[in-house]
Amino acid sequence: MKHKILILGGDGYLGWPTAMHLAKKGYKVSIIDSFSKRRLEFEVGVQPLSKIYTLKQRIEKWNILFKKNKINYYIGDLLNHKFLYEVIKMEKPKSIVHYAEQPSAPYSMGGRELCFFTQHNNVMGSLNLLFAMRKYVPNAHLIKLGTMGEYGTPNLDLEEGWMNIKYKGRKERILFPKKPGSFYHLSKVHDSHNIEYCCRIWGLRSTDLNQGVVYGVNTNETIIDKKFSTSFHYDDIFGTVINRFVAQTVVGENLTIYGNGDQIRTFLNINDTLKCIELSVKNPPKRGEYRVFNQFTEKFSIKQIAQRVINVANKKGYKTKINKLKNPRIEDSKHYYNPINRSLLKLGLKPQLLSKSFLNEFIDYVAKYKSNIDKSLFKPRIKWNKGTLRLKN
Amino acid sequence: MKHKILILGGDGYLGWPTAMHLAKKGYKVSIIDSFSKRRLEFEVGVQPLSKIYTLKQRIEKWNILFKKNKINYYIGDLLNHKFLYEVIKMEKPKSIVHYAEQPSAPYSMGGRELCFFTQHNNVMGSLNLLFAMRKYVPNAHLIKLGTMGEYGTPNLDLEEGWMNIKYKGRKERILFPKKPGSFYHLSKVHDSHNIEYCCRIWGLRSTDLNQGVVYGVNTNETIIDKKFSTSFHYDDIFGTVINRFVAQTVVGENLTIYGNGDQIRTFLNINDTLKCIELSVKNPPKRGEYRVFNQFTEKFSIKQIAQRVINVANKKGYKTKINKLKNPRIEDSKHYYNPINRSLLKLGLKPQLLSKSFLNEFIDYVAKYKSNIDKSLFKPRIKWNKGTLRLKN
Repeated sequence: MKHKILILGGDGYLGWPTAMHLAKKGYKVSIIDSFSKRRLEFEVGVQPLSKIYTLKQRIEKWNILFKKNKINYYIGDLLNHKFLYEVIKMEKPKSIVHYAEQPSAPYSMGGRELCFFTQHNNVMGSLNLLFAMRKYVPNAHLIKLGTMGEYGTPNLDLEEGWMNIKYKGRKERILFPKKPGSFYHLSKVHDSHNIEYCCRIWGLRSTDLNQGVVYGVNTNETIIDKKFSTSFHYDDIFGTVINRFVAQTVVGENLTIYGNGDQIRTFLNINDTLKCIELSVKNPPKRGEYRVFNQFTEKFSIKQIAQRVINVANKKGYKTKINKLKNPRIEDSKHYYNPINRSLLKLGLKPQLLSKSFLNEFIDYVAKYKSNIDKSLFKPRIKWNKGTLRLKN
Repeated sequence: MKHKILILGGDGYLGWPTAMHLAKKGYKVSIIDSFSKRRLEFEVGVQPLSKIYTLKQRIEKWNILFKKNKINYYIGDLLNHKFLYEVIKMEKPKSIVHYAEQPSAPYSMGGRELCFFTQHNNVMGSLNLLFAMRKYVPNAHLIKLGTMGEYGTPNLDLEEGWMNIKYKGRKERILFPKKPGSFYHLSKVHDSHNIEYCCRIWGLRSTDLNQGVVYGVNTNETIIDKKFSTSFHYDDIFGTVINRFVAQTVVGENLTIYGNGDQIRTFLNINDTLKCIELSVKNPPKRGEYRVFNQFTEKFSIKQIAQRVINVANKKGYKTKINKLKNPRIEDSKHYYNPINRSLLKLGLKPQLLSKSFLNEFIDYVAKYKSNIDKSLFKPRIKWNKGTLRLKN
């Protein structure tokens, strides 16, 4: 019998490619999505780079092409616990990959309502999921997407979720003390505490993936058919930094860096996200174990990233350069940063690093959709210390 | 001009005595309450030991007796942000004492709905408050009630919220890594993370009080008039351990200990709660500071507490003894426990310790209401690993 996987948020930038990747590998994949993210795009007035087909269209096409690797789907929200219970009861998944959260730090900083939505949606939705798991699939493996941003930038090596400390002559294994940098990141920290507790008292098992910044748009499956494209954002709310830089490049804009660009962050290619999820699925923790993997392959300062894009872009004839903006975020500009990512490498991850040839192809791909890019969406609208998104803009 | 204090949850066991105490001391006190706790009492089928008058009755009586120390009140819920904004805007409090949370660990463990209510009510309500403060009173001092239970029982001294560690040759001041023991305790941990963040990025100021188990029922003000009595619970859901032991004593029941009773907890007299709040009000932190005080005066194992009650009770002719029950909770039975409580002592707290004479009077007081005590409510109905409160009982 096939290993059943339920992907929560399977319509999203990472959820959809994950669903196809795992279906292709022979897992029996089902998706839950409420299209909450698609609604948020309208709310903040942004669109993905290319046309994103409906989940129905994508899956119908997939199921015609891959009759032996069909994907199933359910439309509904984790906040509707009756819906969620019903699906989990029917599907009885062996693994659950949980992407179904509001994914933007700037969005969460856009005022009370956006913050409230973020923590309510993310924390309370995940709570419903934990209760559903206890009731119907206490043996299932919860693979939860978190972020490296949960850690903040303390003067400590960023261990993978846990650390062994010695304090006043006593030893203890503690949860890494997190100091996140937005209400979105805080929602993930709350999730982590709730999940760790449910592993501890109910014997659930979970892998919490503290993921770096993902870049890229194409995977082995997205390129099969235009209907399989995934949602690529270059805007101030949902766009991650490398994706935005590449979009700025192709429309002849300068690369906007927040502050001096010495902030260091971790990164990984979208294809490595898929590999990491698969490695987690294949190597579940024991019952009762709450495990954390730092899911990234490289670290760069924002300035380094910009310079890499510029080097490749200039050779291709794009005259882009760095444009420093006053940092709209509140974050350390200079800091120690030594994040650890041993676990996934040990499980066999072969990283696909940020190479010139990758950037070259990436720029060419995005350039094809140049006419879709709305330049007004690069400018950061949300300031961390003010934080009111002007919805009229 | 008088120092304005807003007390959230001012109808409760601690909120009401705090309101009277501070009004008497010359502060201009206003209360917010939604009576959510009174509704929860009906939900789980319990009542306080003695008749508790309505907030309206209490305050009308108070304002007749103390014309120069009047208390004002607003009926509404923190989850209604428009209501909350309106009150904060009108009142412009200098200090805000925040008791307005679902206060029971067993309640939070009684299944999905009760857990959901607890984290939603506590975490989302506090988020609304933080936004209200930023908008209208960014300079105000938030005094937030947390609990010593947030820490769990690690093999570490329980510092006051922060600790300085050395790790792999690097030094950092970290938030104490918490490992709480219920969804209720988790809600307070989430609150703490959100509050620390708002101090850090918006420059709010807060004192987070990690309080021990409170015992006692009478304060200088509650005894002035029967309408001023505060809500004393002896039941399995809202009753704290010493209060329950005293109630069991006076009806001739044995004192029910969960497990072997070697769990150590921290305690304080209800009168010391009032003193601690006042000390916090008088000594605010700087703008931007997130400060944590461990608010307790003594530590005992549950067995020691039971023995102390028994010693006094037996001398008074009550034939109570210890009755060990299988522990319905999931908690460490043997553990290291060295909690620190320097800060409030340094500010001048003179503890009122758990003495024989106090227990003697306390037993006599509760005995007056003996006929109100429903013995069926002592038995723990909620099990941590099952956690479905049978609402029919």
